[in-house]
Amino acid sequence: MTDATDATSGTALVDFAKLVARLEQFATERDWAQFHSPKNLVMALTGEVGELNEIFQWMPEEASKQAGRNPQTAQAVQDELADVLLYLVRLSSVLGVDLDAAVRQKLKANALRYPADQVRGSSQKHSRPESGESGKD
Amino acid sequence: MTDATDATSGTALVDFAKLVARLEQFATERDWAQFHSPKNLVMALTGEVGELNEIFQWMPEEASKQAGRNPQTAQAVQDELADVLLYLVRLSSVLGVDLDAAVRQKLKANALRYPADQVRGSSQKHSRPESGESGKD
Amino acid sequence: MTDATDATSGTALVDFAKLVARLEQFATERDWAQFHSPKNLVMALTGEVGELNEIFQWMPEEASKQAGRNPQTAQAVQDELADVLLYLVRLSSVLGVDLDAAVRQKLKANALRYPADQVRGSSQKHSRPESGESGKD
Amino acid sequence: MTDATDATSGTALVDFAKLVARLEQFATERDWAQFHSPKNLVMALTGEVGELNEIFQWMPEEASKQAGRNPQTAQAVQDELADVLLYLVRLSSVLGVDLDAAVRQKLKANALRYPADQVRGSSQKHSRPESGESGKD
Repeated sequence: MTDATDATSGTALVDFAKLVARLEQFATERDWAQFHSPKNLVMALTGEVGELNEIFQWMPEEASKQAGRNPQTAQAVQDELADVLLYLVRLSSVLGVDLDAAVRQKLKANALRYPADQVRGSSQKHSRPESGESGKD
Repeated sequence: MTDATDATSGTALVDFAKLVARLEQFATERDWAQFHSPKNLVMALTGEVGELNEIFQWMPEEASKQAGRNPQTAQAVQDELADVLLYLVRLSSVLGVDLDAAVRQKLKANALRYPADQVRGSSQKHSRPESGESGKD
Repeated sequence: MTDATDATSGTALVDFAKLVARLEQFATERDWAQFHSPKNLVMALTGEVGELNEIFQWMPEEASKQAGRNPQTAQAVQDELADVLLYLVRLSSVLGVDLDAAVRQKLKANALRYPADQVRGSSQKHSRPESGESGKD
Repeated sequence: MTDATDATSGTALVDFAKLVARLEQFATERDWAQFHSPKNLVMALTGEVGELNEIFQWMPEEASKQAGRNPQTAQAVQDELADVLLYLVRLSSVLGVDLDAAVRQKLKANALRYPADQVRGSSQKHSRPESGESGKD
């Protein structure tokens, strides 16, 4: 019930307007909008996610839980998370997608797709906790 | 100047608190928090970014500009953008990282790193418009 | 017909034995095998693919056709392609997967899945020329 | 010493010629070469690596060591490893890069970069066992 409330009511969960405007201004001031096609931005986003992987690649799962606070990795973790968000918001912006509405729709779909009493405690019943199936093809 | 304002003043650009709480509740209701280590979530985030790539892989750059409105791709685009955001916010949450603060810090750093009058119109002077260098290693 | 020949006959297409042995020796000499779990190596592979994306992210599609010969990018392109292959072969090795057999099986499946006279010239009929469907989920 | 031998002698480590020819023929028969620009193929490769991540995302590191033999995951693992190799070889081919030469050069560089007696047993001294540094930017 609670999962679907905001999606049906249309209340915003996250307001990206200020950040969208900031990134638009940043690109315009540098005449970089010409490079910011969705195809290019997907690749740029991928590059940042690659760097996030590099931070965690040799880290044991338990240690990864401290990576945001560990002085050796905290700054790099923050930087890469920020980079991923910046490209994601810029990508959504140039695509004309309302990221907040997309997220509320997805949360509603996930609540229906993964009923709590059927998937509880299983990583098999869900392959992606907030989205869909894996192992496809 | 404007680029640094919010970062120095500490004013929030994007407030993720409601979404963080929603994802926490969603995981708790399904007993999925046990699977949500940072290392695992980085891989889940990567899987979603992979799906985003699949939508755009054979699409010419010009056509990609319409992918958010094209009826053949709009829903898939929205779904994958939402999935990426959901995993990114959940990842930041379990890492204890304030994503809004990280973004404001990054925007400030980018403004200093890419002075508009030195990088204008060049994709060489910046390899990643909001972050850093490519071609490393 | 020709596509299935090697797969049915069992003739090797690519012999990775020497490279597998070399990487095994390299890891053993450095006591790095302890870090080379499949999960870790998938992340390391992802990091290298991220770097490949960084080379191409702002490059127009036409220019990308020259990236392997362009003096500004040729060395970086070669390095990243090599890195991806090294991690892929090491990953297959620790997983106990015969990469050559896997490839021959896949080629056979693709020949059946994409009959030339039904998919000719269309990027819609195939979303991944050598594998499967996109836009899933 | 051994690490550099093949690279200096120019002896092939892996011969991709047959697979390169097979993929060329496959694309030509379907008139798909028109879609196979390096930029597009990097994205397709990324999509496959994303699927590989989806297989391993919720899997504990220890369990990942059995994923190539576990009946629940073995076929998917083989399929995705094959897909990654197919796109990597096709990408190298359209770029005009000799993947075997690139790998031999990289192995030689890695042997010099990571002297066994200086990096033994440390995942700090190397962030990428076969390539370079992480945590950049």
